[in-house]
Order: sequence, then structure tokens, then C-alpha cells
Amino acid sequence: MIFASDNTAPAHPAILAALQAASAGAVSSYGADPITARMRLAFHQVFEREVAAHPVATGTAANALALATFVRPFGGVICHEEAHIATDECGAPEFYMGGAKLLTLASHDGKITPAQIEAVMRRAIDMGVHAVMPEAVGLTQATEWGTVYTPDEVAAIAATCRQYNLALHMDGARFANALIQLGCTAAELTWKAGVDALSFGATKNGALAAEAVIFFDPARADGFERRRKRAGQLWSKMRFLSAQLEAYLADELWLANARHANAMASRLAAGLSALPGLRLVQPCQANEVFAAMPAALSAALRAQGAYFYDWISLPGETMPVVRLVTAFSTTAAEVEQFLALARAHG
Amino acid sequence: MIFASDNTAPAHPAILAALQAASAGAVSSYGADPITARMRLAFHQVFEREVAAHPVATGTAANALALATFVRPFGGVICHEEAHIATDECGAPEFYMGGAKLLTLASHDGKITPAQIEAVMRRAIDMGVHAVMPEAVGLTQATEWGTVYTPDEVAAIAATCRQYNLALHMDGARFANALIQLGCTAAELTWKAGVDALSFGATKNGALAAEAVIFFDPARADGFERRRKRAGQLWSKMRFLSAQLEAYLADELWLANARHANAMASRLAAGLSALPGLRLVQPCQANEVFAAMPAALSAALRAQGAYFYDWISLPGETMPVVRLVTAFSTTAAEVEQFLALARAHG
Amino acid sequence: MIFASDNTAPAHPAILAALQAASAGAVSSYGADPITARMRLAFHQVFEREVAAHPVATGTAANALALATFVRPFGGVICHEEAHIATDECGAPEFYMGGAKLLTLASHDGKITPAQIEAVMRRAIDMGVHAVMPEAVGLTQATEWGTVYTPDEVAAIAATCRQYNLALHMDGARFANALIQLGCTAAELTWKAGVDALSFGATKNGALAAEAVIFFDPARADGFERRRKRAGQLWSKMRFLSAQLEAYLADELWLANARHANAMASRLAAGLSALPGLRLVQPCQANEVFAAMPAALSAALRAQGAYFYDWISLPGETMPVVRLVTAFSTTAAEVEQFLALARAHG
Amino acid sequence: MIFASDNTAPAHPAILAALQAASAGAVSSYGADPITARMRLAFHQVFEREVAAHPVATGTAANALALATFVRPFGGVICHEEAHIATDECGAPEFYMGGAKLLTLASHDGKITPAQIEAVMRRAIDMGVHAVMPEAVGLTQATEWGTVYTPDEVAAIAATCRQYNLALHMDGARFANALIQLGCTAAELTWKAGVDALSFGATKNGALAAEAVIFFDPARADGFERRRKRAGQLWSKMRFLSAQLEAYLADELWLANARHANAMASRLAAGLSALPGLRLVQPCQANEVFAAMPAALSAALRAQGAYFYDWISLPGETMPVVRLVTAFSTTAAEVEQFLALARAHG
Repeated sequence: MIFASDNTAPAHPAILAALQAASAGAVSSYGADPITARMRLAFHQVFEREVAAHPVATGTAANALALATFVRPFGGVICHEEAHIATDECGAPEFYMGGAKLLTLASHDGKITPAQIEAVMRRAIDMGVHAVMPEAVGLTQATEWGTVYTPDEVAAIAATCRQYNLALHMDGARFANALIQLGCTAAELTWKAGVDALSFGATKNGALAAEAVIFFDPARADGFERRRKRAGQLWSKMRFLSAQLEAYLADELWLANARHANAMASRLAAGLSALPGLRLVQPCQANEVFAAMPAALSAALRAQGAYFYDWISLPGETMPVVRLVTAFSTTAAEVEQFLALARAHG
Repeated sequence: MIFASDNTAPAHPAILAALQAASAGAVSSYGADPITARMRLAFHQVFEREVAAHPVATGTAANALALATFVRPFGGVICHEEAHIATDECGAPEFYMGGAKLLTLASHDGKITPAQIEAVMRRAIDMGVHAVMPEAVGLTQATEWGTVYTPDEVAAIAATCRQYNLALHMDGARFANALIQLGCTAAELTWKAGVDALSFGATKNGALAAEAVIFFDPARADGFERRRKRAGQLWSKMRFLSAQLEAYLADELWLANARHANAMASRLAAGLSALPGLRLVQPCQANEVFAAMPAALSAALRAQGAYFYDWISLPGETMPVVRLVTAFSTTAAEVEQFLALARAHG
Repeated sequence: MIFASDNTAPAHPAILAALQAASAGAVSSYGADPITARMRLAFHQVFEREVAAHPVATGTAANALALATFVRPFGGVICHEEAHIATDECGAPEFYMGGAKLLTLASHDGKITPAQIEAVMRRAIDMGVHAVMPEAVGLTQATEWGTVYTPDEVAAIAATCRQYNLALHMDGARFANALIQLGCTAAELTWKAGVDALSFGATKNGALAAEAVIFFDPARADGFERRRKRAGQLWSKMRFLSAQLEAYLADELWLANARHANAMASRLAAGLSALPGLRLVQPCQANEVFAAMPAALSAALRAQGAYFYDWISLPGETMPVVRLVTAFSTTAAEVEQFLALARAHG
Repeated sequence: MIFASDNTAPAHPAILAALQAASAGAVSSYGADPITARMRLAFHQVFEREVAAHPVATGTAANALALATFVRPFGGVICHEEAHIATDECGAPEFYMGGAKLLTLASHDGKITPAQIEAVMRRAIDMGVHAVMPEAVGLTQATEWGTVYTPDEVAAIAATCRQYNLALHMDGARFANALIQLGCTAAELTWKAGVDALSFGATKNGALAAEAVIFFDPARADGFERRRKRAGQLWSKMRFLSAQLEAYLADELWLANARHANAMASRLAAGLSALPGLRLVQPCQANEVFAAMPAALSAALRAQGAYFYDWISLPGETMPVVRLVTAFSTTAAEVEQFLALARAHG
């Protein structure tokens, strides 16, 4: 009953098998190998256009490199105050951007709005050279509260971005989970809605360590490959990064994995919402469940071997909030065992 | 006949098998897993003392993180002008150190001396605040010219470092190859000789993507883990990095691999040195062979399917210099095939 | 009637005369001159102890250099969300610190509290390597809302800083104004209360361009002089920076100037508070007055030649807020003229 | 007899008088004042075109800000190995550029050539993402060896720059001295020859602390003003920086000062070259004299009150080399006194 995070999961067997298959003979290093070439084509297909697709090993690197490509050292990024880039990356975006600033916005559901972005821009413009001028907006999809932006919501934000000359980056550590929820295409949720770059996550959803930074207009990726190299993020044996991503995309493994994880979360959410004394504090739209849960119940569940984190408290919510995350490897049995315990101790 | 680089090699089967074995069930992320704990112990054993051993995926990251731990943004690093950190990492050390400077020294064999370091320090001290003050020395072992520093040579450099309050870092991308050549212990070649931190390479010698930064005095690793995180170099599924290193050290796989690679290089060197019209320009002390070779011969060999790089020219050497690198996966047959062709076209 | 900012003021004649006097003959550059030596002694006297006193030309440079001395690139600074370092320096602290992060706190009066600092530290500790770990606290004295911290308030914050190993920096762009208000000594308001470094402002209070970074424990200034040099903040003709500061401190010019500016602000505050239809929104504790003023009145005053800024709005305050700043050069006549106009149009 | 550096000189009386005159009444801060507007026009006139002219207080800041405007953090700057930016600024260019690298070239006279630049570019292009890609060339005019580039030499370098997409920056700390030597116009020595930006020095030649960064195509100054602000280089009381520059340009004071300094250096050079036992090691083309001088003579001169620096040794030169610098304030009497002593002890 490990619901601590989707990164506690193992790797998917198909991805391990791809590593095995990739390890045959000598090939050119640093990405000049046939697996990397095939991986790129697979991304073109997924996004229904030519894209620049650059693999890295971690989501933090993907986000930081994408933002650094768009934002100059004296610029800024507008994002939610609980965005992963703002709270969980130990300042990686600031490091990669050379000291640029994150300008954060608050909301109850992890999402930001065009009006909020506009207000930040107006103040920055008023302040002249004294204030940091934002050059990008960062969204998380699904958000840190497990909610999703619809394509229309993304498009509305993108329109504001264009008005103020802001690049639009999407942190898609759980992009597959959002896609399953929304039932749209990867293209509709990204470039068709105005997204400029996506951190396309695979690690949480089946890979060992593999993400891809996708630039929908390859011309806007200028400098990315040098930045990646000087960040120590360019693998010499690149085939082993590319092979993970190729297997992840093949036969829609990524979608199947996310579909399963989301289903497990829904089941957990449904089960918990039926219990008296606790309350879901966010709609379950991806593979995370956020519940206000009595401390005694949390303690009892943990005593029985369940793992999950206390989350930040919500204004007006008197009970502690906990976060439960499912993964491609979560089993229905685990979920049912957890719910049974919750019922027993609730 | 691929002698372009040891990073064109595949992964060793034992390391792939370790990944497979590691992918079982959910475990804590970010290094709080049992495989990572065992990997650390294995490093204590290899180095005959407690060390801080931190895995990362690339050698560039290992070097840059180690140097950034020792050198403040306004400091400098003394190294050879052809050191990997100076020429092949697209400025990664400067990026990670926050703009600190590499102060480079020249020599014909890739090695630097205490006297050279002392001269740099004296000038820096004379210049006061106007010049960058070095805070570390970086050695490569084996060097970029395939030569090795003996433990005594390292100790002499370390003595100068202590005199001038310089940390001593060793880039050990080919540390195993140097060790085999020197026939000493890992401890003798590092902390016993005065090395403060080592980039312990595994990728070129059998791993998919795994290096470890070793601090011989764990107290001097202060801040390393935050730097690694904010560099996007901390894997969430850390077990997959640790498992590679554990397998690499187990049963002395690392030494066996290096022994083989070195033997292949020696065979290549011996064969080439017997040919008229070309000349080895460095002693073969690890898994690299540097030869002054007529351009016509290089062209003929490449036309027959041999891969190797032209290297930088040497003062006083009229023929072009080429570099040939062997790996754990190089076969004697490949070497013999190459030599036979060289004999035929020489 | 220019109340836009104290930096619209000219230089004080005594300081201009000091520049003239300093420009005699050749002297050693970069601070090895007798005027710089005398300036240092003057600071020892003002602070009743030996201090490291390093001149720079701007307050932004003073703040950024002081913080960079205390905070590593992966660290953070806790400060008020409206602190000058957070909103008015275009990211200078982040630049000088190499990407470290400002963690901001809210309050109605521009002051932060030990409890707020403690909450930030607890969360950072809980988060481990994923969150930025603060290494300093930054106070502004007087604050951006014209309020002052008492020595006791500073001491309480310093106690929390010591508990969490945080350096304490004070941005004293208006330090003299705070001192006049509090009636204590410079020592009592700084190192005796636990402040580690002070940006000692002179520009707003009579200099052309001169601030001093004061480290109360000179040992903690390690690296400062190199950082200043590599920031392009070390004047070759340093005597011209030192001479301004020497004249500023001589005969308590700095205190006399601040006393006058504060008196002018008090007069303005008293006059405005007697008017119906507007309201002071902060106590007047230094040389700034913040008033909620009907937009029609602001417009009328400006039409008559008064200069002052609209300020950020306050929660619960329906009228716009304006800021009025006085300086050493503000005359009673200007204040009375302004008040007369306000009465006429109010 | 102070020939240590031109920055030991005082300020010119006309520039001090300008500060006095500027200190009248309240004016807008941060450059929105009439003196700054007039200063800009004066630069348009000097350079015979509209330019972006941004004042800062130090030459190091001017150089670092100009280079940072042109070079991205992962880029590089090609310059002479003894360039001020490479040896005397404690890494300021690297700091401002966010870690970009200086790639240095050697020559006996402080000048670099198109062929040298081309060789660096070819190697960088060959190396792909592994090497730093230069984005600018930095010249010093006059050079650190007191020599000057002719307009034709500058134009030849600029042609190579255009070929490889490199910006061309000129460090003109002694620009006026070079201009006097060459007898051409400021326009001919800069933008007409292909220079993109100039650090226009005034401090060494009469100002207290004032330099201007000149962009000949104002569109290429994008971001400069924010960079200057976040570097703490934007004076709030900007009029006091602008007034220095306005007075410096007025009535060709800058040219008169440089003409005098150069004449004093020529007199010194002529006198020294007539002495047996020492030797000028560079032609005297600006306000510096470099002589190979017996150590006993240096010592004797210093014992009599002469100040000058030992300089770096030259290959093939057995005597130590000394540097003598003259300024606008150097008198013929000082020069003659020095020469008389040299004759007496030579």
C-alpha cells in the first residue's frame, strides 16, 4: 500500500527489455545512434508534427533546461506558488536560468488564470527596470493538486502569453495522466493550444529515468543542446535514454500505464469519499487523491503499512490534508486493502 | 573496428541484469532505498574507509559538482589545458561553480606538475583582488593523452595543494584503467596520496550511465546533495543508478573490464609501433593509443570500416596524430583485423 | 514639492567639498589611500568597535554583495515580500548570490517576525534537499512602509536566526532615519542586537553615490573584496567614494540630515492627518508618509506641481495609497505649500 | 614621480566643477534628468551617429555588461591572454555573462589577429556541443602593452567576426590615448571599422569614476538597462555620473587630457631609449612605456621616490620588464626628474 509517490514504482518490463535490446554492439555516442533517431520520429508521430525532442534523465532537468532556453538571466517566470519548479527543485530553474526569478501566484486548486498573469505583467511594466520582467509562464499538467487544465484553459493562458511576449512552458511530469482524463490528443493539449515547450515525463509512469523536452517550434530550441551538455545532462551512451522513451511510446504503453494509474486513483477517491469523517479536497482528475483526513485515521493506516504524505494545509480546512498517489504498478488489491483498512478505522 | 571512444560500447550484461533485479516492487525514492545503501558500503570497501559516495549519470556532472563543492564563484581551478573539464564539457564546471575560472597549464603528456601549480599561485597572490584566486586543482587520471600519474606524483601535487589551500580533485573517467596500469590500490591512488574528491567513472567501462562523486572526507561534501538536486542530477528512482554501480563494483567487474581494455590497447600499441612510417606519440598506459600516422593510412583504414578520431597536433610532429580507444567490449579479433589492415596499407 | 523619493535630492555641500579636497595629487588606487583609511576609522567610531567597512556606489550593490557573502548559490534569503531586495532591484540579489532564492513573507507594516521566520525554516527542514534552505534573513530599516524595527524586535529576530544558523542582514538605505526615530545608538540597532551585516546608506541622505557594507565581525567578510572586484564595484579612484563617506560621518552630518528629513515627514504627516477625507495608513516613523488619498486630490496636487508616487494598494483600503518622501534638502516651505494645496483641494 | 597607473591621478577640475553645478535642486532619479539627456547627445556628436550610451562607474562593469549583452551563458569570448578582462577583473566577465568562457590568444604585443580568431572558431565548430562556442571578440584599445590597433586592423578583425557571427567589443579604457596616437576620428576607430560596442573610458583620463558603454546599433543594446540595474550599477542620482561624462566630452577635454598624457609618455620613452643598458620592449603608442630595465636601476629609482610596477616577463628578454604610465596630470618636471635619476643611476 505505497501511495507516497509514483516515483516509488519500479520500471515497466517493456522498458527494461528495450534497454537490453539496445545494448548490442558499438554505436555512435551522444545521440548519433539509430535508436535516438527512431525515438525522435516517434515523438513527431505522437504530436502530429515535427518537434525538437531532447531526452534528459530527470524532470527537474527538463523543466530547468526548457525555462532557461526561454528566459534570460534577468527575466522571470510566472507560475503557481506550489508549482514543482517553485517548491520542489531546490532552485534548479533559478540555477539553470542564471538567477532569473519565479513570480508566484496563489489559488486553491493549483491552477493559474490569464487574469492573474495579466496583473503580474502590468505591475512589471509599471516598475520599469527596477522589477524583473517575466519572459515565460510555467503550467503544471496535471497540477500539484492533481487537477488538470482543459485545452481551452491552456489556450486562454497562451493568448495572454502572446499578448505579453511570454513563452509558455508545460511541466508534464504527469502529462499522460492529464491526457487520459481529458480524452484529447497530445497535440490538442499542447501546441494546438499554444504551448511552446513541454517537459514530457516518463519516469513516474514506467521509465527508469527518462524525460523529453519537446519544443513544438524547433527554431525556438536554439542553444538547448549546448545548455544540456554544459549541464552534464547529455548522456554519452544516449541510446539508453532514447531506448526508454521509444519503448514508452511504442504501442501506447504510456497511455495504458496512465489509464491504469488514473483508474486506481479514481477507485481510491470513490472509496474514500464514501467514508464519513473525511473529505476529498480536490476533484480526482489524474493519479492523485487529496483528502482531509483525521490524524488518528492517518496514523492507524500507516501503522498497518500504508505509505502516504501529509500535504500542505488548506485555508479553512481544519483536518490535516493527505496526498495519495497511484502508479502504473498500483494494484486494485492494494487499493481495496487500503479502503478496507480505512473503513475499519474510520 | 570501432576505436572512436570507449563510450561507443554497450553496457555490460551484469549491469543490465542488475537493473532488471532492481526493478522489483515499490521502494523509497531519491536514494532512501536498500540498493543505494549497499552501493555506499561497496565504496567504503573499495576505498578502505568511510567515504561520501554520490551517484550521478554523467562524468561531466560528476566533475562539475565536485568542483563546485570546493570552489566559490569567484575562485578558480588549475588544470591542464587539454583537460576534459577545460575542453570537452561546454563550460559545465564554470556553470556549476557559478562563473569560477579554469586556469590552464601546458605540457606534452597531459600531466601537470607542482612547480607549474606553484607559479600560478604566486602570480595570483601577487595580483591581489584583481586576479582570480584558485581554490582547487583538477587532475585527470588517466589523462587525456592516455598517461597516468603515479601515486608519488599525485602526492607531490597534493603537497603543493595543501601549501596553498587548494582542494585536489581527480577526474577518474578512466580511473580503473589507471589503476590497472599502476597496480596499486584505489586508496593509494586517491586519499592516501592526498586526493580530496574523485569522479569515479563507470560509464566508459561497462555501465549505461553511472558515475559516483567520492569525497574522502565526508565533511567536505557539505552542500553536495543540494547542489546535485538543484542541478537536476538527483534521480527519483535512484535505485537504478545505484544498482549499476553496485554491479560494477561486485566481483571486481570494474577491474576486470579495465584490465581487458588496457590489454587490448597494449596489443594495438605494440602492433602499431612495429610498423614503419608511424610512431606512438605517448606511452600506452591505459586504454588509449596515440599515434602519428600518415593521412593516407588513416584514410585507408577508415575506408575499411575503422573508426577513430584525428587528435590535436603536437608541436614538432609533422604527421597528423590519431587517437584509438579500446573498451571492455573490444575484441582481440577487432584489434588484429585493424593491425592487419594497417600492415597491408602501411 | 518633490516628494517622489529621497534620491531626487542633490548632494550635500559638505560632501561635494570633500570630493574637491580629495582631488589633490596622485595617491594609490583601489583603496590603499589615506582617505579610505580614515573613513574606516570613522566607521569604527560610529559603531563602537572594529568593523569591516567596504564602500560601494549603490544600495543595490551593497545589499547584493552582503547577501552573497552569507548565502551560497543553493541557499535562500527570508525577507518581506515588499522588501527592496525582493521588488526593486531587478533580481540583483539572485544575480550576486548565483541563483539563490528569496523566500518572502507578508505583513501589513513591512516588518517580519520571528514566528514567520521559524515557520519557513520548519518547512524547509521538512522538505530536505527538495527545497531551498535559507541561509540568511534580510530586514529593511526603515522598512518600505516607513516603519522601524526597535532594537528589541531586531534582537528577537536575531535570536531566531542563531537558532537556525541564519545570517542577519539589514538593508539600511534609510538607517540614519531609523536611528533618529529610535533615539538609540548605531551599535544598539545593529551588532548589539545581533545584526551580522549592514548596508549603510548615504546616497539618499546627502551623498552623490556612496554606501558602505559593514560586517560587524570582520572574519565573516571573507571573500567580500573579491566579490566586489568581480562585480565591477571596486573603484580604482577609491578616494572619491571614501571621501563622501568620511564627510557624511564627520560632525554627525548624517544624523543632522536624517533628523531634518524626519522632521519634514512628521510635519507632512501631522498636516495631512488633520485633513478630512484622507488617512495615514502607516505611522510616520522615518522620512516617509503613506496616505490613503482620494484620486481627485492626488490629481489636483500633481496639477499644481507636486511629485509623489501612487503606492501599492492595501487590503481593505478603498482609496488609492500614495507615498511622500522627504529628504535632507526638503524645505519647510515646500511642506507648507503642499499642505496648503491639500487643504484647498481636500 | 608616480608612474604606477593612470588611476592614481586625481580628477580634472572641470569635472569636479560639473559635479558642483549638477547638484542643484531636485531632479528625477535613475537617468530621467536633463544632464543625462545632454550627455547622450554629446555622445551622438562624438560618434557622428545616434548611439546608445549608458554610464557606469567602473571599466570592469562597462566591459562585463557589454559582453554579457552579446554572449549567452554557454558562449565564449575570444581575447588576448593578457587582456584586462582576462587577467585583471577577477572574473567579472564570467560573472556577468553567467559562466561564459574567455578563450585566450597569445602574442608579443598585446594584439590579436583575424587568423588567430579563425583558428579558434574552426576548432569550436569541429567540436560540436562539447566545446564552448564563442559569441564575441574582445579587443583592448590601447592594449595592455600600450600598443594600438589601426582602423584597418580593427576592420580586418570585424570582417572575421561577421563571418563567424561574433560581436566585436572594444575595451576603451584608454580609447582617448589610442585616438590621439592614430589621428583618426572616434567613428573611424569604432563603428566605421565594425565595432559593435565600446567601453568608453573616462576615469583614467580625468573623471572621478565614469565610463560609458556605447552600442553603435541601439537595437543591439537589448536588455542592457535591466542588466545594469540588477548588477547594482544604476545610480539613483544618475546626474552625477552623467555630469562627469558631459564635462569630459565638453570642449574636447578628453582629447586634450589624452594628448598631454601621450606626450609625457613619449618624452619618457625617448629619454629612456637614449640610455644604455635598458631597452624599450614595445613601441610607445599611447600613455604607457614598457622597458627592460636592470633590477638595480629599478631599485635605485624606487629608492628615490619613483613608483612603477614590474610587469610580466617577456620570452627571450633577460632583464625584468617595468611599466611606466603617464596621465593627464603628469608633469614634464616629473618626467625630467625621473630621467635625470635614471641617467644618474644607469
